[in-house]
Amino acid sequence: MTIAELKRTLIGEPFPTSQEIHERLDKIRALAVFASDPISSNAYATEAIMGVLIVLGSGALSMTLPLALGVAALVLMVVFSYIQTIMHYPDGGGAYTVAKDNLGKYPSLLAAAALLTDYILTVSVSVSAGVRAVTSAVPEAFEYRVIIALAAIALITWVNLRGVRESGTVFAVPTYAFIAGVLVTIVIGLLRRFGLFGFAPLPTLEEVVLPSRSLVGFAYIWLLFRAFAGGCTALTGIEAISNGVKAFKSPEAKNAVVTMVVMGVIAMSLFVGITFLATGMHLVPSEHGESILSQMTRQISGGGFLYYWVQAFTALILFLAANTGYQDFPRLSSFLAADGFLPRWLQNRGDRLVYSSGIIVLAVISSIIVLIFQANEIAMLPLYALGVMLSFTLSQAGMSHLMGKIGTLSEGEKIRTQVTEIHFESGWRWKRVVNVVGSITTGIVFLILLATKFVDGAWIVALAIPVFVFVFAHINQHYQQVANTLSTRDFCVDDLVDVANAVIVPIGDVHRGTLQALKFARSIATDIRAVCVSTTPEMRERVLRRWARFPELTEGIQLVIIDYDFRDIMKPLVDYVQDVNNREFKGALITIVVPEFIPAEGYANILHNQTANILRRELRQKQDVIVIDVPFHIPAAA
Amino acid sequence: MTIAELKRTLIGEPFPTSQEIHERLDKIRALAVFASDPISSNAYATEAIMGVLIVLGSGALSMTLPLALGVAALVLMVVFSYIQTIMHYPDGGGAYTVAKDNLGKYPSLLAAAALLTDYILTVSVSVSAGVRAVTSAVPEAFEYRVIIALAAIALITWVNLRGVRESGTVFAVPTYAFIAGVLVTIVIGLLRRFGLFGFAPLPTLEEVVLPSRSLVGFAYIWLLFRAFAGGCTALTGIEAISNGVKAFKSPEAKNAVVTMVVMGVIAMSLFVGITFLATGMHLVPSEHGESILSQMTRQISGGGFLYYWVQAFTALILFLAANTGYQDFPRLSSFLAADGFLPRWLQNRGDRLVYSSGIIVLAVISSIIVLIFQANEIAMLPLYALGVMLSFTLSQAGMSHLMGKIGTLSEGEKIRTQVTEIHFESGWRWKRVVNVVGSITTGIVFLILLATKFVDGAWIVALAIPVFVFVFAHINQHYQQVANTLSTRDFCVDDLVDVANAVIVPIGDVHRGTLQALKFARSIATDIRAVCVSTTPEMRERVLRRWARFPELTEGIQLVIIDYDFRDIMKPLVDYVQDVNNREFKGALITIVVPEFIPAEGYANILHNQTANILRRELRQKQDVIVIDVPFHIPAAA
Repeated sequence: MTIAELKRTLIGEPFPTSQEIHERLDKIRALAVFASDPISSNAYATEAIMGVLIVLGSGALSMTLPLALGVAALVLMVVFSYIQTIMHYPDGGGAYTVAKDNLGKYPSLLAAAALLTDYILTVSVSVSAGVRAVTSAVPEAFEYRVIIALAAIALITWVNLRGVRESGTVFAVPTYAFIAGVLVTIVIGLLRRFGLFGFAPLPTLEEVVLPSRSLVGFAYIWLLFRAFAGGCTALTGIEAISNGVKAFKSPEAKNAVVTMVVMGVIAMSLFVGITFLATGMHLVPSEHGESILSQMTRQISGGGFLYYWVQAFTALILFLAANTGYQDFPRLSSFLAADGFLPRWLQNRGDRLVYSSGIIVLAVISSIIVLIFQANEIAMLPLYALGVMLSFTLSQAGMSHLMGKIGTLSEGEKIRTQVTEIHFESGWRWKRVVNVVGSITTGIVFLILLATKFVDGAWIVALAIPVFVFVFAHINQHYQQVANTLSTRDFCVDDLVDVANAVIVPIGDVHRGTLQALKFARSIATDIRAVCVSTTPEMRERVLRRWARFPELTEGIQLVIIDYDFRDIMKPLVDYVQDVNNREFKGALITIVVPEFIPAEGYANILHNQTANILRRELRQKQDVIVIDVPFHIPAAA
Repeated sequence: MTIAELKRTLIGEPFPTSQEIHERLDKIRALAVFASDPISSNAYATEAIMGVLIVLGSGALSMTLPLALGVAALVLMVVFSYIQTIMHYPDGGGAYTVAKDNLGKYPSLLAAAALLTDYILTVSVSVSAGVRAVTSAVPEAFEYRVIIALAAIALITWVNLRGVRESGTVFAVPTYAFIAGVLVTIVIGLLRRFGLFGFAPLPTLEEVVLPSRSLVGFAYIWLLFRAFAGGCTALTGIEAISNGVKAFKSPEAKNAVVTMVVMGVIAMSLFVGITFLATGMHLVPSEHGESILSQMTRQISGGGFLYYWVQAFTALILFLAANTGYQDFPRLSSFLAADGFLPRWLQNRGDRLVYSSGIIVLAVISSIIVLIFQANEIAMLPLYALGVMLSFTLSQAGMSHLMGKIGTLSEGEKIRTQVTEIHFESGWRWKRVVNVVGSITTGIVFLILLATKFVDGAWIVALAIPVFVFVFAHINQHYQQVANTLSTRDFCVDDLVDVANAVIVPIGDVHRGTLQALKFARSIATDIRAVCVSTTPEMRERVLRRWARFPELTEGIQLVIIDYDFRDIMKPLVDYVQDVNNREFKGALITIVVPEFIPAEGYANILHNQTANILRRELRQKQDVIVIDVPFHIPAAA
């Protein structure tokens, strides 16, 4: 089976470009598609708060609920602040686009770098959390969690390379099943907790009393900030709808807004409900073991059908959440590539019309993160949510700038920005206030996240984002340079480098391969020099003798034999070529023709001196040399 | 600093081939050069026996001495049996040469594979044991033993790449210092043990009584065999002199024989002495801690100057022993490469007249082994000594064959074998008996080693050796095929492939790079077709428009635009080339000219579509295509 056939089998037959279809989603299915990421955060967000508070002892866990309410308030504020973005960027208003349109190049690159970082982490964190849902139910699998996580990434990568589009129906099942399962659990939990309708009260857990420490003043506040920062992981994925407005059925913007609000309300209801019950039941997080959600569901449901339902769909919705990274990362990379900030091949769509290169880059990086962190998503969380918070800040700042511009328009006037069309709106002042408040709030939260998580890993992100921006700018500079160099503006034919009628053929012996190279050289030029670097007198004698045997091919060709008392025969060859070039054909292209053995078995290449490759590498940076391999095929040994 | 400058700094200026010198060694220095490997085995050989016996409890350690005496007898037998080899192969009679000359291709390859395996292990084992000598004296360094071992390999590699020849003087110091130090220790130990000349008796050690097990019958014999097999590691390196007869001062063979006998006697005296004292003092091996030699020296010397002397020179002589691997492996590889059984580049000598490639291959493989075994030489020993024992067996079998041939000669008659000159010898029958006994004995010991160590790691060697032989034979077959294909016997000029006067220039756009490629194409042919795979109507229109702008270059060139509804533009290009080739120029070489961007910053290559490379790879296996890159340089961005 050839590589091409293997690819066909794995990926499927290529799709023609014209066959691209755009599925339009109704609100029910759109919710399922876009909500998997934010709603799945419920699998770990409560735990992320409790994990910080626990250092003060189990008593301090009572602060979990107020902090969760704070996070919920922040989420709802972001949701409402994003309504403006959706209304004004109906073609999709990701933070990169909004920042580019309103704030300029560097803020937009900053937003892009922040988002790309977070998309990668979405995959690593979600897959790891999904694996934890599996191992919470099946503890025997814990030992194999890294392999399970890598296999899950490989599976998701494969599905995405095949180009299976995020079909709303496929997404709808696990998302709604998860929401329903958790909701039922919460309702039963509340009924049992308050002993309503004759439900059996919750079993009294032996309260784990951990040694209590107390902190005062700044240290206490700092700890609360850290716990709050942990909860902010619930915000990731909220911005996805603003990127995907075009995926909605008409009226797109209005449907997107409604869906976003419903999504925010559901996600936060689950979050607050889980947090209320978990703290009321005195559950305690265990870093390497069962998740809080699993503990809670097990207690409330008694470990039966409902428990396995919730665990199974937790795992599934988390894997779907990882899948959103596979939509977002390649798309944003392709935007950046199209604008010349990332390698152009990231905008090439593969056989199945997906951004294959972006998918593979994402799979590799997120797998490395899973390996480094050993599929422990709790350890990854300090890196997470920073990017999304920075992108919120920039996106809202951009919107406030846009609102200011709208304010300068007169009634009924319309203008186009780079990306979208705007017209006067009467409520622009109030809307602008919402965006300014949103931008400042998320900006402050970003700083809190950065400060409180810095030593735990946020420094990695704080380092990565500027590095990305630097790389983007650098790549862009290179492409500009290429475009300038290639431009045919003011082109004159004399600008091109001349081609000298001279060919150099390095030979080590006279055999069929060499003779074929000489024949080719004769067909393209008349001034031909065969050059042999001789390291022993026997070699010189042998070459001279054989050379004389083929006058039909060697006649008129100058044979240059260089006696050389070292073994590195490339050096005299390179020197000879440069010398000829400088003395006889200054500024013109001269051609080197090299016979190249091509063994039928590819691995046999290692058995041949890679003369052509070495020459090409050595001479590549010089303006004036073309190296031609004349293939000589060696059939497979019998 | 360029790579070339870095290489000059590290390796030094190249030596001319004619500058090669052959140092001739007197017996004193020759002993130092060749004995470092076998004599250094004393650092671990006793321990290797005790480590097996200990499973029967400390009482069983009393069997160590008899087994050591058995090993010593075997060594002396091998030494005397090798005398014949040295006398008959004065140009160097390694097992590979002797087997090739007398037994044929496959036995010689078997011997070569066995020796190469063992040379690699010499480096890994000796370096690891040297590091143990360091960490026995400085226990704090134990944690860093792998890094120390890898650094030692890197250092030895560097020294060898610089081509510092095994200068007898450099070797003499540590070898004789080690011999002297251990001898003094043994003598003091004996004096103290028997309370002679008023020496203080040895301190009474608290005898470590390990739980005693008893084995009966076969199981007991098996254990003794295993312990004996452990002791056989003392045999490694003994054959080195037979390879290096040419390094001796005249009369070479006689000096080599004397040196070999002295070496065997010294090595075995130390071995038996150490074993006698170690068992008498009730020392017990500890796998991860202090070596037996270190324990013994510490007790006898009281831990003072003598102790550190012995430890320091143990480490040094072990590193020197590793160095012998750096002489033997590249030399044998180069013999195999010259005979066409390994890649030819293994016989190329580098700038400093050493077999650089062989040195680097050895360094890489032995480092990997050190990593895998975490620099624990005791764990490597089950793999060790198998190769050398197999090579003894084959070499002695070869000698016995040679003696048989000598027996067929009449008095005074001389003939040449492939490698050496032989004449009638009167004592050939007796000599033959010695070789037959030697071959059978070492053959049996080989089987004992293989069987007793099989599950502990010998299976790796048992697998590796046949794989090597298979690879050697396969490589040889390939080179034969190449030689046959290239041969100009019965050559006729018409056998060469015709060169079609047709050039295909794939273009994606019309820019300076494309125009340069067209200019080159015009210089080598008249039938030129520019081929553009257009994926959008805009692209088609743009190319047509720009094409028309440069009539000086495009006139007379056929522009072929292929509209294509997929993204993989290589496929239609490849199809087009094959189609042209098959329909118009069947059986002739056609040429493809591709503009190639060469960015001033090498890393910027990743930013460009590697069209030329992909085309070359796709079309490489086809008989009839030449791909030419016309370089177009992109200067560094300002």
